[in-house]
This record gives sequence, C-alpha cells and structure tokens, in this order.
Amino acid sequence: MFAHPAFSIDPWWVGESTLDLSVLAQTESVFALSNGHIGLRGNLDEGEPNGLPGTYLNSVYELRPLPYAEAGYGYPESGQTMINVTNGKIIRLLVDDEPFDVRYGELLRHRRMLDFRRGILLREAEWRSPAGSRVRVASTRVVSLVQRSVAAIRYEVTPLDAGVRVVVESELVANESMPARPVEDPRVSAVLDQPLDSQEAWGMGTSGMLIHRVRQSRLMVAAAMDHVVEGPEDTEVSSEALGDIARTSIISTLDRSDRLVVTKFLGYGWSAERSRSALHDQARGALQLARHTGWDDLLKQQQDFLDEFWAGADVEIDGDPEVQQAVRFSMFHVLQNAARAERRPIPAKGLTGTGYDGHAFWDTEVYVLSLLSLSRHQAVADALRWRHSTLPAARERAAQLRLSGAAFPWRTINGAECSAYWPAGTAAFHIGADIAYSVGRYLRTTGDLEFLAETGLELLVETARLWRSLGHYHTDGTFRVDGVTGPDEYSAIADNNVYTNLMAQQNMNAASEASNRLPARAAELGVTDEEIASWRDAAKDMYVPYDKRLRVHPQADRFTDHKMWDFDGMTADDYPLLLHFPYFDLYRKQVTKQADLVLAMHLRGDAFTAREKSRNFDYYERITVRDSSLSACTQAVMAAETGHLDLAYDYVVEAAMMDLEDLEHNTRDGLHLASLAGAWIAVVEGLGGLRIEENRLVFRPRLPEALRALNFRVMYRDCRLLVSITEGNACYQLLAGKKLSLWHYDEELRLDGDAKQCGALPPRRRLPRPPQPPGREPTRQGTGG
Amino acid sequence: MFAHPAFSIDPWWVGESTLDLSVLAQTESVFALSNGHIGLRGNLDEGEPNGLPGTYLNSVYELRPLPYAEAGYGYPESGQTMINVTNGKIIRLLVDDEPFDVRYGELLRHRRMLDFRRGILLREAEWRSPAGSRVRVASTRVVSLVQRSVAAIRYEVTPLDAGVRVVVESELVANESMPARPVEDPRVSAVLDQPLDSQEAWGMGTSGMLIHRVRQSRLMVAAAMDHVVEGPEDTEVSSEALGDIARTSIISTLDRSDRLVVTKFLGYGWSAERSRSALHDQARGALQLARHTGWDDLLKQQQDFLDEFWAGADVEIDGDPEVQQAVRFSMFHVLQNAARAERRPIPAKGLTGTGYDGHAFWDTEVYVLSLLSLSRHQAVADALRWRHSTLPAARERAAQLRLSGAAFPWRTINGAECSAYWPAGTAAFHIGADIAYSVGRYLRTTGDLEFLAETGLELLVETARLWRSLGHYHTDGTFRVDGVTGPDEYSAIADNNVYTNLMAQQNMNAASEASNRLPARAAELGVTDEEIASWRDAAKDMYVPYDKRLRVHPQADRFTDHKMWDFDGMTADDYPLLLHFPYFDLYRKQVTKQADLVLAMHLRGDAFTAREKSRNFDYYERITVRDSSLSACTQAVMAAETGHLDLAYDYVVEAAMMDLEDLEHNTRDGLHLASLAGAWIAVVEGLGGLRIEENRLVFRPRLPEALRALNFRVMYRDCRLLVSITEGNACYQLLAGKKLSLWHYDEELRLDGDAKQCGALPPRRRLPRPPQPPGREPTRQGTGG
Repeated sequence: MFAHPAFSIDPWWVGESTLDLSVLAQTESVFALSNGHIGLRGNLDEGEPNGLPGTYLNSVYELRPLPYAEAGYGYPESGQTMINVTNGKIIRLLVDDEPFDVRYGELLRHRRMLDFRRGILLREAEWRSPAGSRVRVASTRVVSLVQRSVAAIRYEVTPLDAGVRVVVESELVANESMPARPVEDPRVSAVLDQPLDSQEAWGMGTSGMLIHRVRQSRLMVAAAMDHVVEGPEDTEVSSEALGDIARTSIISTLDRSDRLVVTKFLGYGWSAERSRSALHDQARGALQLARHTGWDDLLKQQQDFLDEFWAGADVEIDGDPEVQQAVRFSMFHVLQNAARAERRPIPAKGLTGTGYDGHAFWDTEVYVLSLLSLSRHQAVADALRWRHSTLPAARERAAQLRLSGAAFPWRTINGAECSAYWPAGTAAFHIGADIAYSVGRYLRTTGDLEFLAETGLELLVETARLWRSLGHYHTDGTFRVDGVTGPDEYSAIADNNVYTNLMAQQNMNAASEASNRLPARAAELGVTDEEIASWRDAAKDMYVPYDKRLRVHPQADRFTDHKMWDFDGMTADDYPLLLHFPYFDLYRKQVTKQADLVLAMHLRGDAFTAREKSRNFDYYERITVRDSSLSACTQAVMAAETGHLDLAYDYVVEAAMMDLEDLEHNTRDGLHLASLAGAWIAVVEGLGGLRIEENRLVFRPRLPEALRALNFRVMYRDCRLLVSITEGNACYQLLAGKKLSLWHYDEELRLDGDAKQCGALPPRRRLPRPPQPPGREPTRQGTGG
Repeated sequence: MFAHPAFSIDPWWVGESTLDLSVLAQTESVFALSNGHIGLRGNLDEGEPNGLPGTYLNSVYELRPLPYAEAGYGYPESGQTMINVTNGKIIRLLVDDEPFDVRYGELLRHRRMLDFRRGILLREAEWRSPAGSRVRVASTRVVSLVQRSVAAIRYEVTPLDAGVRVVVESELVANESMPARPVEDPRVSAVLDQPLDSQEAWGMGTSGMLIHRVRQSRLMVAAAMDHVVEGPEDTEVSSEALGDIARTSIISTLDRSDRLVVTKFLGYGWSAERSRSALHDQARGALQLARHTGWDDLLKQQQDFLDEFWAGADVEIDGDPEVQQAVRFSMFHVLQNAARAERRPIPAKGLTGTGYDGHAFWDTEVYVLSLLSLSRHQAVADALRWRHSTLPAARERAAQLRLSGAAFPWRTINGAECSAYWPAGTAAFHIGADIAYSVGRYLRTTGDLEFLAETGLELLVETARLWRSLGHYHTDGTFRVDGVTGPDEYSAIADNNVYTNLMAQQNMNAASEASNRLPARAAELGVTDEEIASWRDAAKDMYVPYDKRLRVHPQADRFTDHKMWDFDGMTADDYPLLLHFPYFDLYRKQVTKQADLVLAMHLRGDAFTAREKSRNFDYYERITVRDSSLSACTQAVMAAETGHLDLAYDYVVEAAMMDLEDLEHNTRDGLHLASLAGAWIAVVEGLGGLRIEENRLVFRPRLPEALRALNFRVMYRDCRLLVSITEGNACYQLLAGKKLSLWHYDEELRLDGDAKQCGALPPRRRLPRPPQPPGREPTRQGTGG
C-alpha cells in the first residue's frame, strides 16, 4: 500500500500504525469521510503537515475561463472546479506553548483507523514536545450520514507526565494555502487561488461562523462551529473571528489525572439563491440540532445507518482477507460519497479530493449506480433526479450542437459542459445512453413506476431523441452513428463504435417501451406514435460492425484494420501511454486504454453469442493496457463469464486494490469512486455472475480456486437476498421480503419466506489464459491460481 | 470591391479615387508593398486613421504561451506571432499648425494607385484644412525589390492657396497602439502588447535610428531613416529621438510657387544573433547605400526588376478586363511577398497583415511555389532552402511524435510547430509530401541538380522516412496511412485520405529515385539500399480507397458512407460553416470545405482515369462549400480538365477576385497569398492546361467563351515561353532560350529558336454543369457563359 506496510489488514476497517509523511496525501484520500453533501479529507486535526487540505461541499465550485489557443464553435468557455471550502476540521494544540506538530518533538505512538461499521475516523497519538512534555491526543471524526449538514469531532488531550498547560485552538479557516502542483497531467485539477470572499465572520462564547461568497460562481457558503468542553474547572473558553478565520480558544492546565475533552460540532450550508441571513440560520440550525442530538447519539445514528446498509449489501470473501477488506473499504466509500448527495452530482472522485476538478462523468451512472441500484435504491433515484434537473442545460447543449433532445455533458458539476477537448468529451455521446441504462436498471431493480413518470421517462425520451438525430440511415438500410467516441479514451471520433451503437439501441428501445407504457405522460413530453416508431425502427436497424476476417467485433468501424500498437517496444515508464504518446498515434492504432467492446459485452450481453464473447474477450485482452481505473472490473466480469476464472480473480484483486495500493498513482487527488464500485461489480457481477436481464434476476456464480466461499447480499425490489457461494453450489435466501423469483443459470428458483434454495455450480474449466500486453498483466497476477 | 466601386479597372494597376474609411483596413492590404523581407501595409502616410497599422520584417515575431484547458502529450507550448515592428512610413504634416488628417477639414481630391509595373504605391490628396488652407500632398512609396533592406518614400507638399507654413514630421515609431480586436484568451494580448523594448534611439541632422529588442523572442530590430529635403531656402531640418520615437522635423514656409519635396529613405536590419552595434551598422549601411543610389535610380531598379518578371510571367486575358487586372494584381503580390524572402518563410498572408499570426502553411509549397516555379526559380529554391533550414526542428518534432524522419510543422515562423489544435494541425501530415512535391516540381522546371544535392535530396529523404514510419502494412498487403487529416478542414483524423496517400506515394518514389540518382550524397544521409527499397515498395503497395458502389473515390476511407450534409437546410448566414457548426458534426458528414480529392486529381492526375476524374469532380462539386480561399482555383483546374469550361471560368473569376472583392471577409488581416497564386493556377493550369508530367511540359489549353484570347508566359528550364491561345488553336513560341520540347495534348512540339508552333484546340463540349451546394455557386456565376 504505497510502500506503506503499516496498513493493517482487518475485515471492517483500514488502519495505520505509523505515520509516513511521504504518502500523506494518499492516506488523506483513504481516510476521507463524507456523506455526499460534505466531504472531509483525512487531514491531521492540526492542519499541518498536509498533502492536500480538503473540505468540500457538493456542488460548491468556482468558475474559471477555459482557454483555447485556437477557438472553435461550441467550445465551452467556462469551466467549473470544485474548491476547498472553509475548513472546520482544524484543532490545533499547544503544549506548554509548543505547538503539537508531528514534524517536531517525537511522535511516540500513532494510529489512524477508518471504521466501516461505525462510519468514523479515529486517531490516536502520543507525542513528546521538543521541551519534553508528553501528551496523548485522541480524536474521533464523523460526517453524519443522518444529519447531512453536520460533522463533528471529539478531541481528547491527556497528559502523560506532570501537569501541562494546554491551549486548544479550534478553528474555521477559509482560503487555506494549497500546495503547488504541476498541471501537465490532464487528470489533475486546476488550482484556484483564494476563491472565497468573506461576507461575515463572528465568534462568541463557544462558537463561531464564517460566511463566504465564491468569487466568480457567486455561491454563498456558511460554516459554523460550536463546542462542548469538558476539563478541569479552570478551563477557559473564548471565541473570536475576523475575515477568513474564526477561532475558539480553550485554555486549561491539566494534572496527570485530568483530561480535556472538546467536542466540536460543525454545520455547513450553501446556496446559489438564498440570502446571507437565510444561510446563516441554516448553518446555525444544523449546528444546534447536532448539539441537541449530542455526540453519543450522532455516533449511534451513524452506526444504525451503516448497520442497515451492510445488512443489505455486505460481501463476505472467505479466503482472501486483503480483498475482503478492500471490497468493504470500496463499498463504504461509495456509500459515503453517494448516500446523501440528494439531487447533486456524484463526482468521479466523490468528495475525497479535487481530481478531475470535482466533475461527474458517465462512470457515475455505469459503475457507481450499478452498485447502489442493488444496495441503496434511494441514492440511485436521487442521482438520476440530479441528471434530470440538468435537462435544460443538456437541451441547450444539444441545440448548440444542432441536435435534438438532450446532450448531457461529458464532465460537469452544474450541468454545463466543462470538457475543453471535444474529441474525448463532447464526442463521447454514449453518456446519454449510459444515463438511460441506469434508468432502466433502476426501474428493473425497484419497479418504481412513479419515478418513471416523474423522472425516468423524460430522461429516456430526451436521450432517444438525441440518438435519432445523431445517427442516420445508410443506403444499405442500416442506422449508423458516425464520428463519435466510445468509452476507450485511446480511440476517438470513430464510426459505429459498437458500445455506443448497442447502448443507443437499448436507449431507443427503452424510450419506445416506456412511452407505450405511460402514453399520457409521453404525450405531455410531445412524444408521438411516429416518434416512437422511429426509435423502434432505428434500434431495429442499428448497425453493428463485425470483422469477418478475424471473426471478432471491431471496437468501431475499421478498428481491426489499424496497425497493432508496438507493445513489445514499451517499457514500464511508457505507461500511462497518454503521458508519453500523442493522441493522434493512440487513436489510429490498436490499443485500448480500457474496456470498450468488452464493456459492451458486459452491459449488452444479449447482443453477443457465447462464442463471440470468448473470441472478442481474447482479442481485446491482448491490446488493453488498463491505463484507466475503470477497466479491471469489467475485464473481471467478462473473464469470469468466458470461463477464465483465475484471470477474473486477478482482476477482482486489481479492481479492489486500485486505491489502497494507489495503482494509478493519483489516489492523492482523491479516490476513484467508479473503480471502488468496480470492486463490487467484479465480485458480484463477475464471480457472482449477477445480471438483470429484462426483468429476470439471474446468477451464474463461479468460485475461483483462491476462495473458499463468497457470500453477498443484494436489495432487489422489496427483498433483501443473501447469496452464498461455495465450491460446489450456490444458495439463495431471503433475509427480508416475502417472495422472489430468480434464475440460477438456466434454472428458475422461487424463493418464498426465508427458505434457502440452492443450485449446483458448473465444473471449473481449464482454458488457456489469454495474454495481456507485456508488462500489463494484472497487478497481483497468479494470486488467484 | 467591398462595396467600394471607386476601384478603377486598369490592366496594370489598381487604384481608387475616393477614400472610404469603412474599408480602410481592406485597402491597406490591397495597397501593401513588400519585397518578402520588409512589408508595409498601405497605411496612410500620416498614420491615422488606420485599419491595422503594419510594418513587418520577415521572421520578426514574438513568442506567446499556447494555453490548453486540457493538456496533452506533444502539444506545442509556445506560439509565434508576427509583430508590427518599428513603423518608418509615418510622415505627418502640419498646415499652419493644423494636422493634415482626412477626418477633419475637407478632402477635396483623393487618389491611390498600386502600380504593378513600377512596383510603387502612389497617393495624391488635395485637402482644405479646417482653417481653410488648401494643400496638395503627393506621396510615392517603394519597397525595393533590389535592395532588400530598403524602402523609400517621396513626399511632396504643394500649397494651393496663399503661402502656408508647413511642418513635416517624419518618424520612426515603435510599439504603435493597435486597434482593439476580440481575443478569447487574455494572455494573448498581454504578451503581444508593446512587444518591443527600446535598446537605442538617436536622431541627428536629417536622420534617426531606433533599435529594439522583441521582449520574449529576444530578436533585435533596427530601423533607420534619412531624408533628402528640397524646398525654399529657409527650410529647416532637425532630428531627435527618445525611446520608441525618432523624429525628423522639416519646417518651411511655402509660397504658391514653392514645393516641399521630402525623400525619406528607410533601412531595416534584424537578427537573432548579431550584436546591437552590428545591427546598427547593418541598417545604417543599407540606408547609406539607398541614399547613394538615390530616389530616381531606386525606382529605375524597381521597374527593371519588374520588367524582367513580367517578361517571363505575364498573363494577358483578352475579353475580361476585370480578371485581367485581378490576375496581374495577384501575381504582383505573390512576387512582392516572395521575391526577396530568401531562406525565410513565405507566410500565408505574406507580409501584408497579421492574419494566421504570420505563419507559413502547406499552401506556400502547393500554391505559391507553383506559380514561382514557372516564373522566378530563385524564389522557389530559396523558399525550399528555408524549409531545409528548419529540418532540425522537424526532426525533433518527429521524434517527439515517435516517428522517423522529419515532421514539418502545420504552421510556423521559425520552424517549430505552432498549431494548438492537433486534429487540424499536427495530423495534417500531408505537408511533408507537399514540400516533396514542390521539390520535385522545382527540379523538373529547372533541372537544378546542385540544388538536389544540397537541399532537395535531404528534404525528400526525411519526408519519405516520415511516411514509412507513419504508414503500416495491412494484412492484405497494402500500405496504409491511418488517422491523418487531408487538405479539407471539414474532415479530420481519417484513414487513408486519398490526397495524402497519393502524395506520400509520390514522395517516397521521389526519394527513392533521387537517392539512386545521387547515391553518394544519399549514403551521407544514411540512406541504404534497404531503405530505398522500402520506400519504393511502400509506394507501390500504397492503398487508395475506392467506393465501388458509387464508383467514386471517397476522400478517405468510409467518407462516402457518411451522412450527406443538410445543404438544403443552410442559409447564407450559416457560412462559413466552421463558425456555426461544431467540428464533430462537420467531420462526420459529407461536406468539404475545400478541394481535397479534387486537389489530388490535379496534383496526381496520373493516378486517375479521365472517367474517374469526371465522376469524382461531379461528386465533390456537390458537397464542396468553398469556405476556404484555396478551393476555387483547384476547382477551376479540374472543371477545365473535365470539360466544364464555363464553370472553370467562373472559378477563375472567383479565384482572381478573392481579395479584391474580399470574398472571405478577412482581407483586412492581409491578402491570401496562396489564393492569389491560385488565380494564376486557375488560368495557366486550368485554362492553359499546363502540367509538368514527369519531365514533360504539357499543355491542354481550352478557351472559355467569355474570352477572345489568352496569352501567358512561363519560364521553363532556360527558356522563356509564350503561349497564345485563341478560339481555334494554341501557339507556342520561345522568347528566350534555344530549344524546348513540349506537348500540346498528345502531340510533341519541338521549339527551336523563335519559330512559333501551333496546335488545334479540341472542340468545346457542352456537358451538363455539375451543381454546387445551394447558395455556394461561384460568385460571378454565368459571367463566363
């Protein structure tokens, strides 16, 4: 783990027992807390040293001009960048006037632990000051999954020697200075200097508040704090504030038997619309409610919330403790960053860092919501309602591009396109079909017709309209989509990308079916019988290229005619290729950054025969370099489906370890939320073989030799289902809900009450393992063998 | 002419007799003078009002950062922009203390005239000051084609009423304030504002000098002036200088019979290397030589130079005075801007304005040098020597792009790539083959083997190396070039662009043949027999796509499968399309900005049958919108070759009138040098049917009904050839040189001495006229009918 062997391997938490400053930024991402509304990186309480200070509020961003040395029609002029807002995490300690700073004096003991069941970050330190005073500091941090505007920190100071005088300075700090960063890497965000403009600052008694306005975006942000202090009688508390700082000072003299316990409650509010006084009241109200709830009950609520989640979602991996931990770590972070996003975007890095500028991409729908659609339905509905709320911007963009319907942005916070490189942004129109896919998956897992009428239908209709105007009929009668970019970012602007065409086909079919299902609502949206027929026909006539010579599907027209990438000429330093080769060369050769055709086989498995899947998987396996964190999980799924079980497990491991082992070398900028969800996808859809085919819940489980057993739980319709897979068979049992019909391979199982039903697993096959490009084998290759 | 009907139609000059300030910037381009080294826009002597002040020195540029909102490997970081250097044109006049300014008082008479035979710009004005004094001002401006560092102005003031007191302030001015222009990126103007940093300024007696350094590029520029003053005895002359201004003041009191005549000599010098004192001496030396030559002899030299040019290059068009004028205007500007460029680039706008940042593109080789290769061989050799001098940068670029040989920049001044949008820049690799084409054409017209050994071979070899590494062998045994951009800027990143592949084929064949011809020199360049064979084979195996269904050549693979552009849905306001539609949409549909496949048929006529040419021309004619000024001339050539003679003539007219009628609406930024050359191409290669096929000089002349006769002269090898075309036949006669063999259609004519030989013209055919997209017919359609 980033050469950080001190991470413990525990099933329900991730912890460290030494503090390695060289990987501080990475651990800040790993130890981040969030509820989807507020995000706190795992920065040390005292603020310094830090890798990247981070306190985020969902959709609080700054605008910045997008420069072009050569302008073009339809290029977005303004970008959005998630900013570090007012930091309420900071609690500084002075011991006999010496600041507690791990870089000075001696850190005698250190421990941090992120607890997946309790939803808290624990820290303990024993420190000897340069002058020799020893203290023990313990902090517990929580971002409430129940009270979404609230975070809290309990901070305890215990003297270990003779009595010491201590001062605790608990702060709100705006416009923190950020570390200088190189910006050549397109994945890193733009650094915005001092984005917050002070509107109000006050401190009094035990509390304080700062209100700022983001300079260009004009968003207003309020941060409030209050404290409960337990300590010796002479402990003094006072607060003050000015401009960018509010500070509560707690002064105390501690005897050996004393302890100073400070509980800090934080309330945040932000708005684009409301007045300063309204925001003031909002942040203060949240704070008062949190204080009324009290520390103990805040933690109790947190645990209850998580108990409920794990009861319906837990994955137990018997035989690989590291992967067990990593999968729960992954699921915990996905839940944290999505649970209370509530009609706000779920960014690619969640609220754990500013990577990708805090933008949401297509992978929210295809990866993150895939997990949540089987564990926390409400979060999926809310995320799609966010997309729905951006329809005006998407319609405007479509009109600008001279298209019908809605063109959703490749990357955005507020719904407006922020992609400044159109071949890999605007041209990746598949995002519309990905949203439609997510709508369909949500509907199948929940049967929520109300959502369809309210939100889903309009998303399906407007995206279908886009496809109908984007594609065209060829003389040969096929419907084609030219000049677009599929998921693989090492290709662009190609004709008839198979993934895109198949997803668009599904999109148009879904719009057509949903419109027929809710004709009155469809009519309100201006849908006519003519239009429904045009979607159905275009879907039916959709062209899917096939290379008869090689007997594989080209990723897009002519892909398999291109020159093979010179994989043998590459060294480890040449990866990721995008940092060492020009796009023009990547685009015109056979090399894929990530699953594209293989993802099409996962999401549109019905469009391929088993033989095609096998041949295609083998072909693309040889040219996929996985420079994207989105690839391993999809390869795990298709490796499992095509019978390459050991390889599948290797990809499960890679997907699971992506952030814990910093495989992409940018965990410092935040966690890869889609890749975290991918760990679950790899296990549940890969090994578990879960598919939702039309309205059938299907399992085709396979257990790799590396594991003794695999159990997982999913929420489907009103049921909570436990799936238990061992070497010989798989058993299905309802933990909640009355009846559920599912398929185990080709056998229908009807669950009734809590009676378990089982089915045999097919025998393991030994197939030749398809090779990857040299040096690009799965990172923990052979573990599964 | 930009709604400027006062332009006179005269065979040997272009003049105006009213001053229309609304088209001032356009006229400044039209009346620009240059010798390829110095360029002076036709700004009024008094500096104001102006459209765009412009004094340029070839390759004096400033650097500016190229910003990218999303970075990428291999993106150029620094751009070059031609700058307005020290202006020596300014001569201000005060009449009884009132400044002569055409915006005040009354302009009683105005005349400007650009004389193509004398190579001068004449201006006459009669003006009544607000206080009522009338004066006559006449100026004659020359940029010497013989003394390349020299320009001169004769300025005459004659009182028309009672005696007046006049002051003439003759200046050198650096860092002139430029008109505000829309700039998308604030960093651009920041850098380019006030680019010159004063190093030296002095004025004394009749002369002055300014030396500046360009801030970022560190180039040093010296401008010097001296004056000869003729006037009444009491005329006083004094000079002074400080910082950015040097000024010579001439004070005189003129009686009715007096005249004040000021002759201003200007000398320029610049260098990236030489010291300030060396530059000082250089500019001053040029100045002294000019003064020594004297005004009359400077004009005499100029006329001799132009007499020589016209004797070998003139085109006489009998039947269309407007086109007659326009073609000479075009040729004059091409000559001016190229004659003394001497191992410096010939920019797209010459030295007539800052459009395209003063960059040189591929059209220098394909268009401008095509004219010069038959009229001024030396200029071609020098231009190609400039390319050769940039080989180190082109090799470095190829290495950065992971290619072999040399990758010449899409746009540049100093040889480094300045294109910030790679799909339309870097990917347009055809520029390498265009340079090779120009080398080949020069060799065939001159037989200059010394040039081949010195310069040409290395250009051929390094470009051939690029093609060999850029292309690849397909399983079917063909050699292919994927993912590149051809001439048409409404397509990009396509496989097997026919133009590119055919030009690359020619390039590799030329390298192979030239290496065999000069084996020792080739060996010095590291060329082996293996390599020669690999070029020859790749050329032989070059893949050229063909659409059997439509029986036309697709511009690139799959082009004819794409959706047809919705031409019927366009209005005049939708053009140029690039300002109203996104690239993504233009790229994926059948619409071409400019001749691409049609240009391939012109430059590689040997690769197409007559029937293919006809079908292809017809097909592309329907989808070519001519949003580029480079298109009409090529369409003229192929319309003529395929027998559409009236259409060809319409395109001749359009090509000829491009700048005089400001058809692209950006003549204000400078003249379109390639398009000016295109006017000649349209006439001589279109109507004259001139082709250089291997080492045969071939004519297939055709005379449109609009013309009574067409005569033109070309320089070929050591001969000066006159071609005279009338309705019935074409006659060929040597005006200089001893023997020349040429082909009139399929008949070989051997000219010996000045004996005329004639051949009959084929009868005119009446073919159905191929339609253009609605509203995109040639601008003076039907004129030729």
